[in-house]
Amino acid sequence: METPQYKQMDRAYGFEEVAIVPGDITINPEQTNIDFNLENLMFSLPVMAAAMDGVVDVPFSIAFSKLGGLAVLNLEGVQCRYESPDEVIKEIISAPQSQVTAILQKVYSAPIKEKLIGDRIQAIKRGGGICAVSITPQNTKNFYMIVKEAGVDVLVVQSTVTTARHASKSYKGLVFSELCQWMEGTPVVVGNVVSYSSALELMHNGISALLVGVGPGAACTTREVLGVGVPQVTATLECAAARETFLKETGKYVSLVTDGGIRSGGDLCKAIASGADAVMLGSSFAMAEEAPGKGFHWGMANPHPTLPRGTRIKVGIRGSLNQILFGPASVTDGTQNFIGALRTCMGVCGAATIKEMHSARMVIAPAIKTEGKFYQNIQACQ
Amino acid sequence: METPQYKQMDRAYGFEEVAIVPGDITINPEQTNIDFNLENLMFSLPVMAAAMDGVVDVPFSIAFSKLGGLAVLNLEGVQCRYESPDEVIKEIISAPQSQVTAILQKVYSAPIKEKLIGDRIQAIKRGGGICAVSITPQNTKNFYMIVKEAGVDVLVVQSTVTTARHASKSYKGLVFSELCQWMEGTPVVVGNVVSYSSALELMHNGISALLVGVGPGAACTTREVLGVGVPQVTATLECAAARETFLKETGKYVSLVTDGGIRSGGDLCKAIASGADAVMLGSSFAMAEEAPGKGFHWGMANPHPTLPRGTRIKVGIRGSLNQILFGPASVTDGTQNFIGALRTCMGVCGAATIKEMHSARMVIAPAIKTEGKFYQNIQACQ
Amino acid sequence: METPQYKQMDRAYGFEEVAIVPGDITINPEQTNIDFNLENLMFSLPVMAAAMDGVVDVPFSIAFSKLGGLAVLNLEGVQCRYESPDEVIKEIISAPQSQVTAILQKVYSAPIKEKLIGDRIQAIKRGGGICAVSITPQNTKNFYMIVKEAGVDVLVVQSTVTTARHASKSYKGLVFSELCQWMEGTPVVVGNVVSYSSALELMHNGISALLVGVGPGAACTTREVLGVGVPQVTATLECAAARETFLKETGKYVSLVTDGGIRSGGDLCKAIASGADAVMLGSSFAMAEEAPGKGFHWGMANPHPTLPRGTRIKVGIRGSLNQILFGPASVTDGTQNFIGALRTCMGVCGAATIKEMHSARMVIAPAIKTEGKFYQNIQACQ
Amino acid sequence: METPQYKQMDRAYGFEEVAIVPGDITINPEQTNIDFNLENLMFSLPVMAAAMDGVVDVPFSIAFSKLGGLAVLNLEGVQCRYESPDEVIKEIISAPQSQVTAILQKVYSAPIKEKLIGDRIQAIKRGGGICAVSITPQNTKNFYMIVKEAGVDVLVVQSTVTTARHASKSYKGLVFSELCQWMEGTPVVVGNVVSYSSALELMHNGISALLVGVGPGAACTTREVLGVGVPQVTATLECAAARETFLKETGKYVSLVTDGGIRSGGDLCKAIASGADAVMLGSSFAMAEEAPGKGFHWGMANPHPTLPRGTRIKVGIRGSLNQILFGPASVTDGTQNFIGALRTCMGVCGAATIKEMHSARMVIAPAIKTEGKFYQNIQACQ
Repeated sequence: METPQYKQMDRAYGFEEVAIVPGDITINPEQTNIDFNLENLMFSLPVMAAAMDGVVDVPFSIAFSKLGGLAVLNLEGVQCRYESPDEVIKEIISAPQSQVTAILQKVYSAPIKEKLIGDRIQAIKRGGGICAVSITPQNTKNFYMIVKEAGVDVLVVQSTVTTARHASKSYKGLVFSELCQWMEGTPVVVGNVVSYSSALELMHNGISALLVGVGPGAACTTREVLGVGVPQVTATLECAAARETFLKETGKYVSLVTDGGIRSGGDLCKAIASGADAVMLGSSFAMAEEAPGKGFHWGMANPHPTLPRGTRIKVGIRGSLNQILFGPASVTDGTQNFIGALRTCMGVCGAATIKEMHSARMVIAPAIKTEGKFYQNIQACQ
Repeated sequence: METPQYKQMDRAYGFEEVAIVPGDITINPEQTNIDFNLENLMFSLPVMAAAMDGVVDVPFSIAFSKLGGLAVLNLEGVQCRYESPDEVIKEIISAPQSQVTAILQKVYSAPIKEKLIGDRIQAIKRGGGICAVSITPQNTKNFYMIVKEAGVDVLVVQSTVTTARHASKSYKGLVFSELCQWMEGTPVVVGNVVSYSSALELMHNGISALLVGVGPGAACTTREVLGVGVPQVTATLECAAARETFLKETGKYVSLVTDGGIRSGGDLCKAIASGADAVMLGSSFAMAEEAPGKGFHWGMANPHPTLPRGTRIKVGIRGSLNQILFGPASVTDGTQNFIGALRTCMGVCGAATIKEMHSARMVIAPAIKTEGKFYQNIQACQ
Repeated sequence: METPQYKQMDRAYGFEEVAIVPGDITINPEQTNIDFNLENLMFSLPVMAAAMDGVVDVPFSIAFSKLGGLAVLNLEGVQCRYESPDEVIKEIISAPQSQVTAILQKVYSAPIKEKLIGDRIQAIKRGGGICAVSITPQNTKNFYMIVKEAGVDVLVVQSTVTTARHASKSYKGLVFSELCQWMEGTPVVVGNVVSYSSALELMHNGISALLVGVGPGAACTTREVLGVGVPQVTATLECAAARETFLKETGKYVSLVTDGGIRSGGDLCKAIASGADAVMLGSSFAMAEEAPGKGFHWGMANPHPTLPRGTRIKVGIRGSLNQILFGPASVTDGTQNFIGALRTCMGVCGAATIKEMHSARMVIAPAIKTEGKFYQNIQACQ
Repeated sequence: METPQYKQMDRAYGFEEVAIVPGDITINPEQTNIDFNLENLMFSLPVMAAAMDGVVDVPFSIAFSKLGGLAVLNLEGVQCRYESPDEVIKEIISAPQSQVTAILQKVYSAPIKEKLIGDRIQAIKRGGGICAVSITPQNTKNFYMIVKEAGVDVLVVQSTVTTARHASKSYKGLVFSELCQWMEGTPVVVGNVVSYSSALELMHNGISALLVGVGPGAACTTREVLGVGVPQVTATLECAAARETFLKETGKYVSLVTDGGIRSGGDLCKAIASGADAVMLGSSFAMAEEAPGKGFHWGMANPHPTLPRGTRIKVGIRGSLNQILFGPASVTDGTQNFIGALRTCMGVCGAATIKEMHSARMVIAPAIKTEGKFYQNIQACQ
């Protein structure tokens, strides 16, 4: 008796399971161009900093702008709930581990103060930064006008999963095509998405860029708690396929920003080779001296009142933002000099630009765990 | 020389190897409908509690009924072998680990007392519970009449592997089509099964629901001892295919209950996405304050006189039944707030009902083990 | 540029990667027939004991015969090199670990004494045992006549890899078709083999059974030292395909004995389901009270003068031969009651005989390693 | 909606994931021929020693030549930067681990002294060795004339990734076809490469042999830092396919040397079975008494000023070069008697020559990690 198929499941791949194949031509790393464009804005680094309270505050945003990247301030975090967010952050990072979830739940139940939204945006602008802020879809209609009037440069609308359509009996959801009109040319970045069809539908709403990634990290517990998630290489490849379809249909190029699960220069390179135009880093920047979390890191899903996912983690301070981005690396595990790694990788792939890097060949090559024998770690590199 | 193929083997998948892909539309989690039907009985939760002595006794059954689920009392466990089962359970859970197998073998060699069968069923009914009880196929003919007369609501006939046909030279096996007639409309749930053909054949016997799962758990030693088992995602997909075939042929919908190996909200969601109408939980409920095992758990295959499989395990008490089901979760590993996880997952998949959730897209995405380096656990969730 | 394929590689599977699917009918385990035939010899157990010095000596051979199995005495081991092999074994098992390889190399450099060959065979026969002995292909021409005259019942010709053809400039290799004639009806068992073509060619030489397995064990270091080996499920499937081809061509059924890598009842069941008529166990019997190694185990490749593979291992004494074969099991990991496991497995697969078990369905289902979290080992079996 | 494919990714395999299948004929190991040819030079061992400062100095090169292999002296390492390299090596190996990267960066920033290049080459020649030296592509034009005049036998041009074409706005890259002419018949070996197209293009430039391997080792951090690399079995198979194509087109046979990731005799055998004519060993020789690193090992990518990859590792001294190559092995993990392993493997595969070994059948058979239970390591070999 032949078994009929109830459901087809394709294999999806994460960073740890793929590798990039060198090209047939090599180029000088210093001569690669890694610019990232968001509509008319141009950044010299294809890197965004994640909208997390342990990573981005006003000074971080300004500092990262000056280095060429784009940091996103979370309008629903401590920065816009408290006049003095630094004290609140101090409370979070000094709490014993057993009380963290409860403290996070308490801290994030304070109301968002509209006045602070404008204040923070203007402080970044005054400091000379390019200002990006994030809000969730459900709060976007309440706050977009304040954000716009405060002179924001980029609006990020972000939740764990964001789709063009949201069904509710109790309220009318956000319509992204309307939002894009309201913002009158200010780039709107939306996320997170992981599939071809969702990405394509959002692109048709006129957005400027997509954040790619749901539950990508090995330690982010969204996959354990909800069972939901697509590994980042496949998620990025699917969204890149949507970008190509959309480009062919409309002539408009929507940027992709792979967000989550990037822990090393190698991961960054793989995200770009999978079709990303830029990446968003969280924990890697939480290790920067300039990060407000002082070596601690937590996510916006942690304080969920009934279904918290993930928790506060001590990542440690491991160097300046400059060192993390440009080296010199004092470690050899890929967590420093992300930009040097990207340029070197583009060099061996013969890619002069990020778009050329999209054509790099990749293979499926799972990282093999060796058995802790004497020869572990003895293979040096030539 | 070409090698002829002796046997075809298809790849089978477990919970740890798949993930659910968010949908193109999202819906409000609170507005999802998760009802579970068993013929004319309707439950507000798609969850059954397993017929294990560390999990279900009379008070547990009543309490779980009131929360909307269906607990199964094992008629071949301590509840119907002993007037005072609590003392026997105390003996089991206080035994030193080295003596557990011997004590279990002794405890479960006491005879089943027919009188107690009726007593337990009536106690559950008196307490206001919906009453489900389980017996093995070989004992069904002996006890079904007592069970029926005591007013049971659901009869579960369960063994490690149950098929519509059983060959023996010494006795005539149970005929499920006859049993269903004898029970006169009381739903008969049968298990466990894992394959399309076995499931379809049992459905043709008129049963109401199937329990899906043989040897699914990583620690259940059926796979080690017998080599037998099919991982739960594939087992559920095969049985769901049988349900579709049977529905097309007869117009009757037979429910599927995935039983075993579900350790987190994510696993529950994956079972439903694989085609299950409900799940059966054992160890997760053994952690409830209300469970008779007081944080200990053991299976019905443990006391086997010559071929015991698995042993008593300390799972610990981790919260009330209410907290395990509905949260708030004090942990972030998916072992609390199963129902909140299901509704949230259905929300991001745009599934308003369990049946709509059967259409959720899934990918093969093995959980990657990271190498215990500094960055382990540093990925927070947005 | 399309890459031409230099070499095709198919996926091969081991015991840990597959599982047996229950059948559509179940049968009573006690009513299964597990006889194993070797030409006119009939054994009530489909199990051979491996020709290793820590496992088989004269008393073990007699005891195992009486239980229904067939033990193989190694004619090139200590039994035929020393008048008093027990003293030599005592020396091996009492040596400090660091000196084991050297001591093994010394012990096995003593000459084989022709007189002892006859003595050992006759001792087994006198004790009432069915006598099987093993020699390597290179020594077969020297010793087969002594063996035959001593009244051996089964001759095993075994080396790591044995083929029908052996090329050498210095000597004329053993021709198996000639050997089979010389032995005049005494069954000749040859091994080890792992591929369809090698198996088929040996069958055409008139042998009675094949030993299947090269480098199967996770810990046997043949794969590390030589890179050579095929996992046992695939090896057995290939040789079974050869048996079917040969049966169709000639009408003769050549038995397959899967040898190596079988550590639990589950592995034994999988070997049978893959097409084996019997299995050969080494380390599992080294744990028997009756084994001469007294809880220590070593292989015939260990004393290789320049390229030793594997070493002496302490497996411990874990029960009598009777308990290992028939239970009752005091452990739940499948290492005791091999025969009970086989009969139970055949029961859930609806297989009344070993040949029917060859039709059992199998799936590819790798054992998943869980992450040592609290829920490890909490899944009990129903 | 069907998802268009953005990029195809094929599965690539490493040594740990494959195994060699014994052949249908076996041959005497002692009668195998393992010669390796590099144009007119003939070596009795198919093994090169890697151009690393912990492995090859002048005395090592001479000693290894006399045993039949070919060692490569790195002209950009300490040997040609310092009059007394032994003192510098002593400084490196006695440094505390935390200062190693800094010390390596300092040591390797000293200038290369042209005079020392000639001195080292002549010292090897005077000692009776066949002399091979390596330089990076960017330094080749500066030094090739000195090298040639000093009487080198083999010129190796090596960097992490080397291609026939290199794009730079600031300088004209090395043209390998010109280099081959300049060297007037002295064999030119180039690497490293991993793909069919890159290999084929380099072959068309007239080179004598290719080094295969980028980021192969599990511990080499090139894959982590850059995301770049192809596992060695697939890399070798691709380059072997290029060799076949080139041979068919031109009649010229270009040798392949698999370089990196080979930790045991089994790995060596698999490299040859994948199509390599020889292998290059680094860490295995760093364990030799004759190696200058005295049990320490580091790679040429370690001292990179801004993006160091890998670090100094203590491998320990484990035997003489002779023992590592020819045994007798005092360990059973395949790290000694590489040549005995190769000959034995060729014996069971029925391969009389390296070229015949290229036809050996291979299967995909990942090494299975067992669960550290009592039976770990109990499987002995027959």
